Amino acid sequence: MECVIITIGNEILSGKTIDSNSAYISRRLSSVGIHTKRIISIGDEKEEIEKVVRETLELTGFVITTGGLGPTRDDITKKTIAKVFGRKLIIDGDILRNVEERFKGFGYKKMPKINLSQAEIPEGAIAFPNKWGTAPGILVKEGNKFCIMLPGVPYEMEGLLDGYVIPYLEENLENRSFIVTRTIRTTGIAESSLAEMLEPFLVEVKNVEIAYLPSYTGVDIRLTAEGEDKKKITENIEKVEKIIIDKTGKFIYGYENEDLARVVFNILKERGLKLAVAESCTGGLICHRLTNIPGSSLILDRGVVVYSPLAKIDILKIPEDILEKYGTVSKETAVYMAENVRKLSSSDIGISTTGVAGPGTDEFNNPVGLVYIGYSDKNRTDFKELRLGKERIKVKERASQAALNLLRIKLND
Amino acid sequence: MECVIITIGNEILSGKTIDSNSAYISRRLSSVGIHTKRIISIGDEKEEIEKVVRETLELTGFVITTGGLGPTRDDITKKTIAKVFGRKLIIDGDILRNVEERFKGFGYKKMPKINLSQAEIPEGAIAFPNKWGTAPGILVKEGNKFCIMLPGVPYEMEGLLDGYVIPYLEENLENRSFIVTRTIRTTGIAESSLAEMLEPFLVEVKNVEIAYLPSYTGVDIRLTAEGEDKKKITENIEKVEKIIIDKTGKFIYGYENEDLARVVFNILKERGLKLAVAESCTGGLICHRLTNIPGSSLILDRGVVVYSPLAKIDILKIPEDILEKYGTVSKETAVYMAENVRKLSSSDIGISTTGVAGPGTDEFNNPVGLVYIGYSDKNRTDFKELRLGKERIKVKERASQAALNLLRIKLND
Repeated sequence: MECVIITIGNEILSGKTIDSNSAYISRRLSSVGIHTKRIISIGDEKEEIEKVVRETLELTGFVITTGGLGPTRDDITKKTIAKVFGRKLIIDGDILRNVEERFKGFGYKKMPKINLSQAEIPEGAIAFPNKWGTAPGILVKEGNKFCIMLPGVPYEMEGLLDGYVIPYLEENLENRSFIVTRTIRTTGIAESSLAEMLEPFLVEVKNVEIAYLPSYTGVDIRLTAEGEDKKKITENIEKVEKIIIDKTGKFIYGYENEDLARVVFNILKERGLKLAVAESCTGGLICHRLTNIPGSSLILDRGVVVYSPLAKIDILKIPEDILEKYGTVSKETAVYMAENVRKLSSSDIGISTTGVAGPGTDEFNNPVGLVYIGYSDKNRTDFKELRLGKERIKVKERASQAALNLLRIKLND
Repeated sequence: MECVIITIGNEILSGKTIDSNSAYISRRLSSVGIHTKRIISIGDEKEEIEKVVRETLELTGFVITTGGLGPTRDDITKKTIAKVFGRKLIIDGDILRNVEERFKGFGYKKMPKINLSQAEIPEGAIAFPNKWGTAPGILVKEGNKFCIMLPGVPYEMEGLLDGYVIPYLEENLENRSFIVTRTIRTTGIAESSLAEMLEPFLVEVKNVEIAYLPSYTGVDIRLTAEGEDKKKITENIEKVEKIIIDKTGKFIYGYENEDLARVVFNILKERGLKLAVAESCTGGLICHRLTNIPGSSLILDRGVVVYSPLAKIDILKIPEDILEKYGTVSKETAVYMAENVRKLSSSDIGISTTGVAGPGTDEFNNPVGLVYIGYSDKNRTDFKELRLGKERIKVKERASQAALNLLRIKLND
């Protein structure tokens, strides 16, 4: 089955807003076997909406719109689509009560009159109540033509799509196929090496599509299978997943959208371990990533951003002769940093980064992108030498990822 | 003049890639008076491309496409659009040399044969050489119908658009209007207060559109003027800008896309001042933002992320009785942190943050979102008490912005 997504709003056409809704909708619809044929953005203009909705309903029979469902004058999506289906707008009692409740919740004595229009839906349509705002989602069906209208505010749209639209489609679409996907996240290994390790074992796989998705902090492997028997395609995915875990398990840090910082946080928290971080080239990014996680104070004791050599000596007591002999960018300095930040803070584990983020080389003429990361716990120390490219911000991101990954590997040892 | 933007690629339809190209194109075209009527995303399918290009050329006479210009089998944009215009593809000598040079630059002895197709353009078209990749930009004109093809990789597309397409349009479009915009960035003041301060003086402004664009780190004021006389509309914009600077100057930190960290960096660098940062609730974000700037080691001596009370005592020598009496989240602690990080590092200026990022309250039962920021130089100290909402990551971002802004204000005192 194919669909067209129409996002409605002048702010998209002017480039003020990037349309992220349609990518979300497209991904979610594909999970119930509906493929997107076109994505169209148009302005809040009656003739345009009418023309495009008519044409695309003709094209695929399944149209989903976002935007233009608010209570103000420029919100004309609902009225226009009702016209396309030749229906009049009527008040939906349930939705009206829902909107009134919301206004009470905000301390209004009475709902502002302008919002009465929020409770109107085309006659015979199905309304999905919006828990995150006032505009309901609306489904109009005629014969085998569907049109679903959702609000444009992303979290309202996502809530309605996930909470009502997808379950509705799962129940009501006949003969549809299922799409199951699984994303396996790896880091510390290049796309080509990963493929080389896996291909001999995956060459015979026919019913699961395997995609390598490299980014500068790792390679995601995405498995996709489509078919009418959900149980069977899930089993197929799991078979392939098992091969991948068997062969490349040590490079895998998580699944779907999991962040490496969160993975490390979970292990440290579970074991009651405290971490201290000494950052030079990553400039605070490791701490920033860890402290984005609620409860990070349970595992992060402290971090230091020792950006100058003096700071390394002052705060971390790195011996001056080490810095002079090996340079601030060296495995010796990285290990000292990790060890001393751990000891000085009485933490269980210390990690560190030192490198040349660029754009210039350092005083030892080390090349841009050379990075050392250090690890220390009470039994051992370790380090890793890396070349992470020429772009400052990417060097920082890659180095933060590599440091968290070294930590993950040591914790799993 | 109106245009249609068509972004071509299966990865957009599947939701794997969010189409950010069209927003960029739309903004740039509007600067030369071209308004976007529709944005359409379609897959790499010959019939679809042909159909949509034909229809939209009919609709507006000006079509711009991105994607599908690579050398591989699924890149069919060029061939298909040549067919729409009834032209055959011919090799462009300049583009061929450009592509061959690029391959030499990568150490190839000879250009791979598959790339010969990159040098093909529809007969009579204009090719814009691509300095960032191999696919050139192509402009096909017939009567008053235009079609411009650009590659889909954002930085290649942006380079070609800014470097060739916009200048071409500026020179060759007749009777077009100009759009001039100016963005004035403020922070530390709410949208409503800003509007209250400005509206009495702006109420009579007729020829400049004024928009307040709030985000959680500040409010941008965008001025837009359109007309045929570029000099005049620029003057109109400048008049309004002057009023805004007069009335709200102390809240303005920059223009267009300028980042506050960069503004602060520039002042510190110019004056040869060194900064030290003590972060608690911002968890490394201030240092991260500063170290994203090339050359930040010139102004940033060090940062400490003193996430635990013990770290505040150990590293920053905050007296224990201060922490016990006032709590780690207090103006006293914030000022101590700023002062001591400066003194201990022999920096010229110290700034600090301490607060409750959430989701839970702290041990003194301070509410989520309460943040203190501290400032210290050799002559004075100061602090600010803020309430920054309930969401952890936004609290961090707002607090980092407020700390950098306090620093900016003190530097401008």
